[in-house]
Amino acid sequence: MASVKDSLLAPVAETLPSSGHKVTVVGIGMVGMASAFSILAQNVSKEVCLIDVCADKLQGELMDLQHGSNFLKNPQITASTDYAASANSRLCIVTAGVRQKEGESRLSLVQRNTDILKNIIPKLVEYSPDTILLMVSNPVDIMTYVAWKLSGLPKNRVIGSGTNLDSSRFRFLMSQRLGVAPTSCHGWIIGEHGDSSVPVWSGVNIAGVRLRELNPTIGTGEDPEKWNELHKQVVDSAYEVIRLKGYTSWAIGLSTASLASAILRNTSSVAAVSTSVLGEHGIDKDVFLSLPCVLNANGVTSVVKQILTDDEVQQLQKSANIMADVQAGLKF
Amino acid sequence: MASVKDSLLAPVAETLPSSGHKVTVVGIGMVGMASAFSILAQNVSKEVCLIDVCADKLQGELMDLQHGSNFLKNPQITASTDYAASANSRLCIVTAGVRQKEGESRLSLVQRNTDILKNIIPKLVEYSPDTILLMVSNPVDIMTYVAWKLSGLPKNRVIGSGTNLDSSRFRFLMSQRLGVAPTSCHGWIIGEHGDSSVPVWSGVNIAGVRLRELNPTIGTGEDPEKWNELHKQVVDSAYEVIRLKGYTSWAIGLSTASLASAILRNTSSVAAVSTSVLGEHGIDKDVFLSLPCVLNANGVTSVVKQILTDDEVQQLQKSANIMADVQAGLKF
Amino acid sequence: MASVKDSLLAPVAETLPSSGHKVTVVGIGMVGMASAFSILAQNVSKEVCLIDVCADKLQGELMDLQHGSNFLKNPQITASTDYAASANSRLCIVTAGVRQKEGESRLSLVQRNTDILKNIIPKLVEYSPDTILLMVSNPVDIMTYVAWKLSGLPKNRVIGSGTNLDSSRFRFLMSQRLGVAPTSCHGWIIGEHGDSSVPVWSGVNIAGVRLRELNPTIGTGEDPEKWNELHKQVVDSAYEVIRLKGYTSWAIGLSTASLASAILRNTSSVAAVSTSVLGEHGIDKDVFLSLPCVLNANGVTSVVKQILTDDEVQQLQKSANIMADVQAGLKF
Amino acid sequence: MASVKDSLLAPVAETLPSSGHKVTVVGIGMVGMASAFSILAQNVSKEVCLIDVCADKLQGELMDLQHGSNFLKNPQITASTDYAASANSRLCIVTAGVRQKEGESRLSLVQRNTDILKNIIPKLVEYSPDTILLMVSNPVDIMTYVAWKLSGLPKNRVIGSGTNLDSSRFRFLMSQRLGVAPTSCHGWIIGEHGDSSVPVWSGVNIAGVRLRELNPTIGTGEDPEKWNELHKQVVDSAYEVIRLKGYTSWAIGLSTASLASAILRNTSSVAAVSTSVLGEHGIDKDVFLSLPCVLNANGVTSVVKQILTDDEVQQLQKSANIMADVQAGLKF
Repeated sequence: MASVKDSLLAPVAETLPSSGHKVTVVGIGMVGMASAFSILAQNVSKEVCLIDVCADKLQGELMDLQHGSNFLKNPQITASTDYAASANSRLCIVTAGVRQKEGESRLSLVQRNTDILKNIIPKLVEYSPDTILLMVSNPVDIMTYVAWKLSGLPKNRVIGSGTNLDSSRFRFLMSQRLGVAPTSCHGWIIGEHGDSSVPVWSGVNIAGVRLRELNPTIGTGEDPEKWNELHKQVVDSAYEVIRLKGYTSWAIGLSTASLASAILRNTSSVAAVSTSVLGEHGIDKDVFLSLPCVLNANGVTSVVKQILTDDEVQQLQKSANIMADVQAGLKF
Repeated sequence: MASVKDSLLAPVAETLPSSGHKVTVVGIGMVGMASAFSILAQNVSKEVCLIDVCADKLQGELMDLQHGSNFLKNPQITASTDYAASANSRLCIVTAGVRQKEGESRLSLVQRNTDILKNIIPKLVEYSPDTILLMVSNPVDIMTYVAWKLSGLPKNRVIGSGTNLDSSRFRFLMSQRLGVAPTSCHGWIIGEHGDSSVPVWSGVNIAGVRLRELNPTIGTGEDPEKWNELHKQVVDSAYEVIRLKGYTSWAIGLSTASLASAILRNTSSVAAVSTSVLGEHGIDKDVFLSLPCVLNANGVTSVVKQILTDDEVQQLQKSANIMADVQAGLKF
Repeated sequence: MASVKDSLLAPVAETLPSSGHKVTVVGIGMVGMASAFSILAQNVSKEVCLIDVCADKLQGELMDLQHGSNFLKNPQITASTDYAASANSRLCIVTAGVRQKEGESRLSLVQRNTDILKNIIPKLVEYSPDTILLMVSNPVDIMTYVAWKLSGLPKNRVIGSGTNLDSSRFRFLMSQRLGVAPTSCHGWIIGEHGDSSVPVWSGVNIAGVRLRELNPTIGTGEDPEKWNELHKQVVDSAYEVIRLKGYTSWAIGLSTASLASAILRNTSSVAAVSTSVLGEHGIDKDVFLSLPCVLNANGVTSVVKQILTDDEVQQLQKSANIMADVQAGLKF
Repeated sequence: MASVKDSLLAPVAETLPSSGHKVTVVGIGMVGMASAFSILAQNVSKEVCLIDVCADKLQGELMDLQHGSNFLKNPQITASTDYAASANSRLCIVTAGVRQKEGESRLSLVQRNTDILKNIIPKLVEYSPDTILLMVSNPVDIMTYVAWKLSGLPKNRVIGSGTNLDSSRFRFLMSQRLGVAPTSCHGWIIGEHGDSSVPVWSGVNIAGVRLRELNPTIGTGEDPEKWNELHKQVVDSAYEVIRLKGYTSWAIGLSTASLASAILRNTSSVAAVSTSVLGEHGIDKDVFLSLPCVLNANGVTSVVKQILTDDEVQQLQKSANIMADVQAGLKF
């Protein structure tokens, strides 16, 4: 007897393996899964491949996503411990990595995560030589440098999620103070993702009105309204959320999906992402830090040359030097 | 000196507290958060309130969502341990509840969850007397009955997420067998959510072609293609996902968001949800089970009268009797 | 014999007439229809009512939209020559009006359109006393004033689409020059919609970097790069598009849908819309002009106080005086 | 002096010309523009190229769409009279063609439109050899055959929009009768687009419940509820809309966008489109007619073998014979 499939369907041609917008997510912890889910739920891509070393969890996450296929309007979701499954990805998002142990030096952590990337990056590039790499693993700026080194890709195609999330947090806090939508609150956090990030107060504006024109002390210790507390809150955010719920997931997942959208849809939007900054703002080290970048299907195609104060430049250069030192100690 | 806000904005009128599409999610475990996140990420509602007893985790989840506000296009997200925060919700989604202890009887579990609902449902209705209640807590069919009893609301406005997810899982598995998109694979799982759910094989179709017309034994033990394994896999799905990743989240979150969309957007879509089935298919007990329902801003406005086989009817009636027995033992 | 409907569906409750996000569009010319279609296609609202005097065309447009219901995911679309159909709208968009005849004075045109609004505005407010009015009819600034007078509504709830479109055109032209996405090109056109609109060059920026900092002559006649041509092109845009295709539709439809989204979803986004400017920038006339406004479910809740040059202020005041003169001659 | 662009942006890499999801629309009448606008507004593709012979109107439509770029989230829109602009399209949608003159024979009309396609199809295929062709020009079934012949492409990659719209109209009318969302009303119109289309009453269902089981006379002249009037209304729809508003646009635009979405996103959804039916349902002519098809990135990869009544098969065969006769008279 003919099978139901054969009785039902007259074959005409083969199905193609890909829509051309395939995204691979490496690492299926809370950050990786929130990224994958945001990409699917927001229809950034219909084609997602999950890669991890933990076969059981991988199968569980795969099934859980696939069971929602009907609500996600027919995505193609795959999962594997084998990088062959990632072949022909337009974008590979890397969230894999270990956390700092108590008492562990930064260099030790970075070396451990570098060793992990040695097993990931070359395989991703082997199977998807035209891919863009979006690094999310922490410390993200150094990890982006490491991924670039390991990948052999041109700099424009290796990007770190960087301070895109810090900037989003800043805009939310700004929106709370002013009663204005976050998307209408314009402010940029640049530099190193995390503690030493730099808020560019000079550019903070609503509808082109710089808050500094209204309050010349904004962002300084002299400001009676203490706007610099917003930046402190941004820096403390990750720690605070981790303390309260154990990990961060939703905001970083949405940030990642937002960057993926700019890349896959070739929009040339400006976002603060970690990119090679050698030669920018007087930096003479070959390191990656976040600056506002034009982001599209070819990755970072331009860096916006912000007009920074001497103090802001010094902070950037200091971060660059620290990172160069750490990088110098790495074994590839 | 005038504040930045006063210097920047000339006030014209007050902001309104609500867009009229507020959704409250009670319980911020994996299911509650996946529901809230799906609703926000898919733009089902821009206004979500989280309620839970755990203040710390609540604050952590709130912050994590709020930090993504910029990417979610300006939602209003709140969180509180106080139900006053839920006031004027169009829809309240209840995911709170405890899990079965080892060796615990079903009645004991149901009684414990009933006691929890006693603290939740009356407060939700007090603050949002016009709300629709969508129950997700398990065992969902009995919990929907309990919520209806506790709420004093008309039956159409108390709904259980029921077999909407089971049906979605079935359609995905069907799509894998046939190479056809899940949204074009039509199949309905009805009855009790979980082990004793009923697949309505007679209606399973692609483009109106019933698979039973192509294979008269489909769904039975005689079927050489063993399509009934699809239903077994559906039944095993939750167990399997929990075994592999520890809990289910994404698919149930998307299922919930899909039901929320039908309700908030008043679409009159048909979905399999848990509803009062007294009088349907010869059921003479006042219980809730899933049947295909017309779902819109007034909740369930019609139930689709499927043409079932005697065997299917008996399975439904058996479930109804078991549930009526459990319900009879409950203390309100 | 029972009808198919009765055999199929067991009634449980009545359907509600509205989702609470109903939008009425008055006038179904190219602008009105592009607005209605944008709102439906972008899922801004699922509930649209069309009002016009031309019953045949109304029925044709209604059917054409309804035939796409399956692709629009189940909207509720109605159409009528009777304003009773618009009852309980959250938002009424008015695109009705006549065009200038050859040799006709501006006052004459405005009077004719005022007479048309006398038949529209009171009926809209009668049936939807809580509505927000969004005026698109030209000359939009005066028509917004007229609608406000005729409506008896508070100023915050009567809005003109104003220079939201002019600003969007400016951002597109800016994006073409710089190779940066329009949504990342920040520039504001304010004042009177059309020929005498004012580009606020001081605020034009990318990622907070003001172009004026890079080119101090930007926007002036001395600028060797002639950026002021962008504003000339904006002013000429409507004429040019009308000359080439006969009318404008897509961009104004999208602009309207964008404003509707901010209102219905209560986002508090900033947009340049026509609002009462009495007291702003030294204007002492009771007229409506576009300024960046905070827009949400209560309409315009704040006006952004931009820091303008003396020249920009004079241009605004000049427009205000001209409009006050025209308004003084109107018969209500 | 450095230009603003050079002062603002540090170049890193070239921008890529395409996201890989480029869509070309040939013919910018009401149908072509509604298709292009639906694709952009619903985010089906961010990259649209318009082709037409009328340079002025082309420029006007281009500008009008581009002015909305800010609201469309940064699409890439181009327009040209030169097919070189269409290069590397994933999908080409052809809406060009002339209408029937009074007293003109069908063969004459078809020959005139064939002559038009001779100037279009080879150029499209030359510049986009891997494209899928989606024909919308009428009479669509013959035009799809003609396009296939002219293109040299495999049959799976030449598709006619066919009865996808007729089926959508049917579902809307069904939804009106039953008070159920169109997306939950399942019914298929197949065969020739237009007057001789065939409603497959046997498969019409809600949640798997066939209406024929509730009313055995449904679709026949004996039916007291006269459900066959729905099909008559479907057939009359285009005429009626054209009589009332002068042309059809919105529903066909949405239908086209829906098919484009299935193709670009590789969804394998089932839609009724015009495809080669040689060998299906006993048809022995090499013609194109609509049947439910699995649609994805490779075009039509399967045809659903519906179980039709003898009468339905005869209607299909009759249409096939008429079309074969017309095709036999065509000069290529």
